[in-house]
Amino acid sequence: MPRYKLTLEYDGTPFVGWQRQENGLSVQEVLEAAAASFSGAAATVFGAGRTDAGVHARGQVAHVDIGKAHENDTVRDALNYYLKAHPVSVLAATAVDEAFHARFSATERVYVYRIVARRSPLALDRQRAWHVPVALDAAAMHRAAQQLVGRHDFTSFRAAQCQAKSPVKTLDQLTVEAVGEDITVTARARSFLHSQVRTMVGSLKLVGEGRWSGNDLAGALAAKDRAAAGPNAPPHGLYLQAVRYDAADSAK
Amino acid sequence: MPRYKLTLEYDGTPFVGWQRQENGLSVQEVLEAAAASFSGAAATVFGAGRTDAGVHARGQVAHVDIGKAHENDTVRDALNYYLKAHPVSVLAATAVDEAFHARFSATERVYVYRIVARRSPLALDRQRAWHVPVALDAAAMHRAAQQLVGRHDFTSFRAAQCQAKSPVKTLDQLTVEAVGEDITVTARARSFLHSQVRTMVGSLKLVGEGRWSGNDLAGALAAKDRAAAGPNAPPHGLYLQAVRYDAADSAK
Repeated sequence: MPRYKLTLEYDGTPFVGWQRQENGLSVQEVLEAAAASFSGAAATVFGAGRTDAGVHARGQVAHVDIGKAHENDTVRDALNYYLKAHPVSVLAATAVDEAFHARFSATERVYVYRIVARRSPLALDRQRAWHVPVALDAAAMHRAAQQLVGRHDFTSFRAAQCQAKSPVKTLDQLTVEAVGEDITVTARARSFLHSQVRTMVGSLKLVGEGRWSGNDLAGALAAKDRAAAGPNAPPHGLYLQAVRYDAADSAK
Repeated sequence: MPRYKLTLEYDGTPFVGWQRQENGLSVQEVLEAAAASFSGAAATVFGAGRTDAGVHARGQVAHVDIGKAHENDTVRDALNYYLKAHPVSVLAATAVDEAFHARFSATERVYVYRIVARRSPLALDRQRAWHVPVALDAAAMHRAAQQLVGRHDFTSFRAAQCQAKSPVKTLDQLTVEAVGEDITVTARARSFLHSQVRTMVGSLKLVGEGRWSGNDLAGALAAKDRAAAGPNAPPHGLYLQAVRYDAADSAK
């Protein structure tokens, strides 16, 4: 059956997360319903990253098998037609080899976390960024963050329900940039543990407030104990920005 | 009575517009309710720009008289406390002279209009930008826009219900910038006619699509006839970005 790679944007606010669940609507479920409406047969959609409830995407990638071959743009437009009722948009659909797997073929994931550090509440970015009501020292956050870059045991930054076999991951980038009150954290790795980005951001916020030194962050990593890290940053500041593949995998 | 200048951010989506109306909730009404809850007396809030239903603000300015004097930050925080249920945020409150009037003292208004030009629908920016499903030539839009800059009779770009005495206005800036699929139009003037920015943007979109030449835009201006201009761009792409005052007016 023809396989399509889908690049997706979504607003995570109304969803229980990427993955199908009994207790509410998931992004996977609305995509599977759209694919079934288009093709006339049940469809399973596999995503590169299982984003939590409230987490957004500007470049999630998924794949789906569709009964017969269509032009890429026809698949994109048809899925978007059936997705109309939901804040999920197919940015691109591309025919790929049947060996392509959105999750297992991925070589890199990029997450962006948005913080707005100001006293006044957010009106326009209410479900789009983490409102931190005090000033943060973004330069100190960036310096401290560099200690997490590289290959480490990230047990301290891993949710209890994480299903990864090993807590050892290689973090390729963790940068903190500020433009006025807007602070952006960018994290890049082949893969992440469950809640890793949100726990890293929650800990960096303590550094930004001056409550933690860079040494405290290094100590939290060394402790290999979830209780040693800061609280999770909330989901609504997090965006799955991009998923990358080897060139050979990305188009048929 | 002490007068405060308020700088405001709001999401226009749930409101009938800035101005109090019989048929629904306005930004003015929720601000007046917050001011009354704080001060214990009825309050009237005057805004610099009467934004339409669905139009957003990142820097609307208003003034309100409050029974007794408070620290600026107390006024800001107290109003934000009472505004919690609504997507309206007081970014700053500043004590000003009683001669200050948010509308009549304003010397400049800046509006920003956001367009996203791409085939796929918007998931994250659904009520935050105008989705135009075709590519637009932003450079052509910018060149054509320069013909509207300066002092002109803007009758063609004025809503039927506009209450301004004269259709002659001086437009100080009209720029069109593109970053990928995101197009930003910035308009700056002492004051604008009702719907002027949205009608200018709706006409520039025709230029961007190649349906109008720059001459067509000049012809629309010269016609002094609303029927000669393009259709209004929708309200949800428009932001009242800033309102400026003479330095003497801006603080007590």
